[in-house]
Amino acid sequence: MKKIITISRQFGSGGRTIGKALAEKLGYKCYDTELVNMVAKETGFDPSFIADVGEYAPGKSILSYAFTSAFPHGAPRHMNASDYLWSTQCKMINEIADEGNCVIVGRCADYILKDRDDCLNVFIYADDEFRAHRIVELYGEREASPEKRIEDKDARRKVNYKYFTGRNWGEMSNYHICLDSSAIGHDECVEIIADIAKK
Amino acid sequence: MKKIITISRQFGSGGRTIGKALAEKLGYKCYDTELVNMVAKETGFDPSFIADVGEYAPGKSILSYAFTSAFPHGAPRHMNASDYLWSTQCKMINEIADEGNCVIVGRCADYILKDRDDCLNVFIYADDEFRAHRIVELYGEREASPEKRIEDKDARRKVNYKYFTGRNWGEMSNYHICLDSSAIGHDECVEIIADIAKK
Repeated sequence: MKKIITISRQFGSGGRTIGKALAEKLGYKCYDTELVNMVAKETGFDPSFIADVGEYAPGKSILSYAFTSAFPHGAPRHMNASDYLWSTQCKMINEIADEGNCVIVGRCADYILKDRDDCLNVFIYADDEFRAHRIVELYGEREASPEKRIEDKDARRKVNYKYFTGRNWGEMSNYHICLDSSAIGHDECVEIIADIAKK
Repeated sequence: MKKIITISRQFGSGGRTIGKALAEKLGYKCYDTELVNMVAKETGFDPSFIADVGEYAPGKSILSYAFTSAFPHGAPRHMNASDYLWSTQCKMINEIADEGNCVIVGRCADYILKDRDDCLNVFIYADDEFRAHRIVELYGEREASPEKRIEDKDARRKVNYKYFTGRNWGEMSNYHICLDSSAIGHDECVEIIADIAKK
């Protein structure tokens, strides 16, 4: 029985939707934007800034923040903003995991909880056409093409994950199961993950 | 319903065992060493040479073969041994796929059949400790350490796959589902793949 499930996902693959449906099926709590709000409350940073830190590479937007913005709730002097957020995020994800019966979407939770044996790490991906179609349907048209938006978002997640974990985002060895949601279908992905979690 | 399943696998992960059990469960035919023998019969090459070509990088062992050995059954003059074997292997894997109800282990079948929509591509991997333990149990001790044997074998598969397909071996986007057999268990892997194949 796995009482913690982490879902990492490509942009537009439906990983978030799968996470929510999975939590509902198992009677688990799903942490996605909830986690952003919790970290915001703990650190005093704005939720939109915290959401961005999960997507952008530190050194671009975040480090500049470290020099222009004070630490709202007083981080130690030797920490910059991204370290402070990371350490708070690690603490909160570990607390959530200790409570158990949870699905955590994104936020490097697979890495943060890698030493627990009650945690199932899942990666959801999909083919480019499926993702391009899905993000336009969900988030509407933008100036950039859907292909460019996907490329940018995944590149940010990749750099961010590398910076904080030292590992390669989307490398299968970091996860216990990786599913192509465009080939397998969202409902079937939920079924498969739930079945494994129950065993 | 997927009538063709390809299994690619890390050395020692149990992909071959899973493939055989899966074929039995679904009433499919499993092609592993059978395929090597079929290609041997068609080309006239020795089965052990063909098995090697699936593991080694052309340019090392195979190209030298091209200059020292005649083509037993008369390949066109502009082809070298590895091209000849590859083209025969592609032809036979396509024939097997056309017959359907089959599990094909290794031999770049995921790539060769990539344009079919009745084919499910699976990758089986496992953690290093599990694999090291398993290869010693299955194949016995050797002079090289199990870790070194695993590293060498996977490196060969990687170079070979890249040479023939231009793609990266073990990159999840090449497969529909990737399973860590050491975390999930062989029997559960068989169940999951069979369930997807039936839908």
